[in-house]
Amino acid sequence: MLEAIDNPSPQRDYEIEIESPEFTCVCPKTGQPDFATIRVRYIPDRHCIELKSFKLYLWSYRDKGVFHEAVINQILDDLVKKIAPRGMEVEGEFNVRGGIYTTVTASHGEI
Amino acid sequence: MLEAIDNPSPQRDYEIEIESPEFTCVCPKTGQPDFATIRVRYIPDRHCIELKSFKLYLWSYRDKGVFHEAVINQILDDLVKKIAPRGMEVEGEFNVRGGIYTTVTASHGEI
Amino acid sequence: MLEAIDNPSPQRDYEIEIESPEFTCVCPKTGQPDFATIRVRYIPDRHCIELKSFKLYLWSYRDKGVFHEAVINQILDDLVKKIAPRGMEVEGEFNVRGGIYTTVTASHGEI
Amino acid sequence: MLEAIDNPSPQRDYEIEIESPEFTCVCPKTGQPDFATIRVRYIPDRHCIELKSFKLYLWSYRDKGVFHEAVINQILDDLVKKIAPRGMEVEGEFNVRGGIYTTVTASHGEI
Amino acid sequence: MLEAIDNPSPQRDYEIEIESPEFTCVCPKTGQPDFATIRVRYIPDRHCIELKSFKLYLWSYRDKGVFHEAVINQILDDLVKKIAPRGMEVEGEFNVRGGIYTTVTASHGEI
Amino acid sequence: MLEAIDNPSPQRDYEIEIESPEFTCVCPKTGQPDFATIRVRYIPDRHCIELKSFKLYLWSYRDKGVFHEAVINQILDDLVKKIAPRGMEVEGEFNVRGGIYTTVTASHGEI
Amino acid sequence: MLEAIDNPSPQRDYEIEIESPEFTCVCPKTGQPDFATIRVRYIPDRHCIELKSFKLYLWSYRDKGVFHEAVINQILDDLVKKIAPRGMEVEGEFNVRGGIYTTVTASHGEI
Amino acid sequence: MLEAIDNPSPQRDYEIEIESPEFTCVCPKTGQPDFATIRVRYIPDRHCIELKSFKLYLWSYRDKGVFHEAVINQILDDLVKKIAPRGMEVEGEFNVRGGIYTTVTASHGEI
Amino acid sequence: MLEAIDNPSPQRDYEIEIESPEFTCVCPKTGQPDFATIRVRYIPDRHCIELKSFKLYLWSYRDKGVFHEAVINQILDDLVKKIAPRGMEVEGEFNVRGGIYTTVTASHGEI
Amino acid sequence: MLEAIDNPSPQRDYEIEIESPEFTCVCPKTGQPDFATIRVRYIPDRHCIELKSFKLYLWSYRDKGVFHEAVINQILDDLVKKIAPRGMEVEGEFNVRGGIYTTVTASHGEI
Repeated sequence: MLEAIDNPSPQRDYEIEIESPEFTCVCPKTGQPDFATIRVRYIPDRHCIELKSFKLYLWSYRDKGVFHEAVINQILDDLVKKIAPRGMEVEGEFNVRGGIYTTVTASHGEI
Repeated sequence: MLEAIDNPSPQRDYEIEIESPEFTCVCPKTGQPDFATIRVRYIPDRHCIELKSFKLYLWSYRDKGVFHEAVINQILDDLVKKIAPRGMEVEGEFNVRGGIYTTVTASHGEI
Repeated sequence: MLEAIDNPSPQRDYEIEIESPEFTCVCPKTGQPDFATIRVRYIPDRHCIELKSFKLYLWSYRDKGVFHEAVINQILDDLVKKIAPRGMEVEGEFNVRGGIYTTVTASHGEI
Repeated sequence: MLEAIDNPSPQRDYEIEIESPEFTCVCPKTGQPDFATIRVRYIPDRHCIELKSFKLYLWSYRDKGVFHEAVINQILDDLVKKIAPRGMEVEGEFNVRGGIYTTVTASHGEI
Repeated sequence: MLEAIDNPSPQRDYEIEIESPEFTCVCPKTGQPDFATIRVRYIPDRHCIELKSFKLYLWSYRDKGVFHEAVINQILDDLVKKIAPRGMEVEGEFNVRGGIYTTVTASHGEI
Repeated sequence: MLEAIDNPSPQRDYEIEIESPEFTCVCPKTGQPDFATIRVRYIPDRHCIELKSFKLYLWSYRDKGVFHEAVINQILDDLVKKIAPRGMEVEGEFNVRGGIYTTVTASHGEI
Repeated sequence: MLEAIDNPSPQRDYEIEIESPEFTCVCPKTGQPDFATIRVRYIPDRHCIELKSFKLYLWSYRDKGVFHEAVINQILDDLVKKIAPRGMEVEGEFNVRGGIYTTVTASHGEI
Repeated sequence: MLEAIDNPSPQRDYEIEIESPEFTCVCPKTGQPDFATIRVRYIPDRHCIELKSFKLYLWSYRDKGVFHEAVINQILDDLVKKIAPRGMEVEGEFNVRGGIYTTVTASHGEI
Repeated sequence: MLEAIDNPSPQRDYEIEIESPEFTCVCPKTGQPDFATIRVRYIPDRHCIELKSFKLYLWSYRDKGVFHEAVINQILDDLVKKIAPRGMEVEGEFNVRGGIYTTVTASHGEI
Repeated sequence: MLEAIDNPSPQRDYEIEIESPEFTCVCPKTGQPDFATIRVRYIPDRHCIELKSFKLYLWSYRDKGVFHEAVINQILDDLVKKIAPRGMEVEGEFNVRGGIYTTVTASHGEI
């Protein structure tokens, strides 16, 4: 589902940050919806993330049952596999549940 | 009371932050309630903290008489003993008393 | 438990607002702690609320099981009975539960 | 799906506000997800809204295709039918689309 | 260019607010770009504003030379002509020029 | 100590607001310092408050033991006596004590 | 110095607000600079304020010694004389001096 | 179009930051307007950026179709070519599209 | 006046921050009151600061004439002498005087 | 004009920050007023800046025509010459002109 576009300036290390406050998935234990803001920061190598395909990729989690820790690592793995960035960090800031806020942050390479 | 779950990505160093603005205990000197926000940041090794058990763990302080400095060190000790993280930091931001705000921060390993 | 003090200026209508962000009680259905900010605005007649006794009064809910709607009406009833103000409003702003924030506001007389 | 509970203080006019920042539905034209914050303010008569059933009621829109203007009027109609409040206002604040933010507010009776 | 859609609940007076922080036009004196946030609040009668056509309508000012006071009155006139609302207010909050911020607000009917 | 200056525009009703976040006095029960922000809004008649004398007047409370409700009514009485305004409101927003914030507001005439 | 332009929509009552955070004058007692934010809200009749001339008008106070209360009434008088609005309010929010903030607000007609 | 002025203190390394919240261009795929805030931080060598020419330079993108990643790299290249700074960073923070915010940051030399 | 309590976890380096927004002293030149927020961050060795005695210690400056730079260094010297921390930083953020805000920060050891 | 006072604790490296939001000068090209916030951070050696003289020094720019880049370097040069600090940084954050905000930061020694 994810698509890549050519990096217009591969000769230079520069940073791209994309943020979506509209991520939602389902808790695998209770079946209840979870909500999060997803942030991706990366230094592209030969390819950048195509934004529309990334939006569709995030939507694909809407009906999936996934744990907080697992989904952030999964998004990182999928993006790294698709565009092989020089460095990347993925952060998920989940809405409060039972009085507790959770944020999970995983990275690949130097960022 | 605290429970652990398996880390879904033990091959990678990544960070989890959990925050509860609903911590309350009792002042051991005056018997009056104290209120604080507790923040835990850690890099899991083989296990993560199970969130529901952590919520119950924090509730267990509701009727206990504990000093600010001691309770933060105790929470850190208990969490380290249960999940042996690669690194962990615990912060308690206590509500104002007598015109004074207090924050205590303790850590274990590299974070 | 609530105590009254004499109003120093009963010849004038004026307003007093007291706010406590440290209210906690217990959910009567689940036994779980609830947290709220309580605000009281009133126009005193012959008496004002003594603040230390009000603090102790709020603490008395710490182990009680009470519904949101009922507790705010109860606080209003108790205060009105004790100091018979010319007007009074009580507001409780409860912490999020299940992704839902609740605020209950009740009043007596003109405010 | 919506459930009612008894109003503990029907002898008094008072206000309840419930807010959920986790409402999501689907655009009936494009099939894309929409996100909104829903706020309900009401003066109960004989019944109050049971909060857990209201949470489930909001979830029931997750896969439905509905227009902004229609969904807010529908929520108001359903709540009025279930608890017959003395007055009620429903507001939906929708996330930006095409650089445009939309808020729809409908009410019933005096609020 | 503006299009109307049917009001789903014409039996009820309710309010719709649409806001665009991405309005730009040209100063008729200097030819320099101006930027503003446009807010429209209205009570629909038989029709609502179709949002996509409104976005295109705002874009149509991108190359036009218009004064602050005139453009807000023009937007109000055009919207009133298209959907004949029960009441409407249009506000334009213009970016600072020469150390001066300007806001123009015009309305039609009761709002 | 308070001084008055002539109102430059007595033919017109207009409003003056003066605010000092640096008010401090002493609790008459415990001898401990109290801190507050004092706000005065008034419509002058023939005289305005001279600001430097008002600053000195506020300083005069630095070592006095006064209750919250009494001090606000006292400031209002003193100012009314000195400049006989068409209307005046005095507000004192006291710093938190024992987890409780207190605000007292008194007025004279129409404001 | 102030100039007027024709009101493009005299058939309608609408509001214009102009704000300048860059007003400075001199204290007539001490010779020290004073700084303020000036806000003007008005309903135009046959004329609007020309903005560039208003900017120059505000600059003309840069070296003048004026009291807070007098300068706001003067600005109101000058603007009313020039454009004869249906209603107008002028507010000056002055920077802190000796721990005291001052705001002066005067109006003409209905606003 | 870009112009340079002499650096008044070339003997010293110091930093200049210029920010414009009024950048707009056109999406090359859809033809729709895009909006961004552009920030430039740099350490000048022999020349500084002349601000008025920089404003005109940014305006020149108003009708151009450019991708987010490409336009930031282009601005950096043009500025570096014109003033040869000791170090420079260009950041573009683009408005939300499809629920996604994008920020692109590129730099040249040490900053 | 300052008192020390035993450090409950001397085997670990951890940080304590205490903040009081209620510090007031007197200007030694003009005799006028000064107000500041005092922040102390430290890593305890064998002792921690007892908070009630620290509150009393800060009150002892209420009638003392002290310069900004001197008082912060004095507080640091007194605290270091009493509890011999592994590291400590004292910051005083003073209220605006003559349009100027002043902050003084001094430290001892590594923090 | 600038005066120095003795450093009360020359045996220690500590930091002083002074900030004035009330700086104004004149644009040398257009003759129009410019406004800025000036911040100075420094580590004193044998002398500190006397604050009242610094206020007067800043006022001396009120009628001078100076460029942004030049004035910040000039302030730094004058302060360094007067008190020979161990380290110093001067920052000027200028108000928006033509939609562009400018900040200039220069330093001397280690800070």
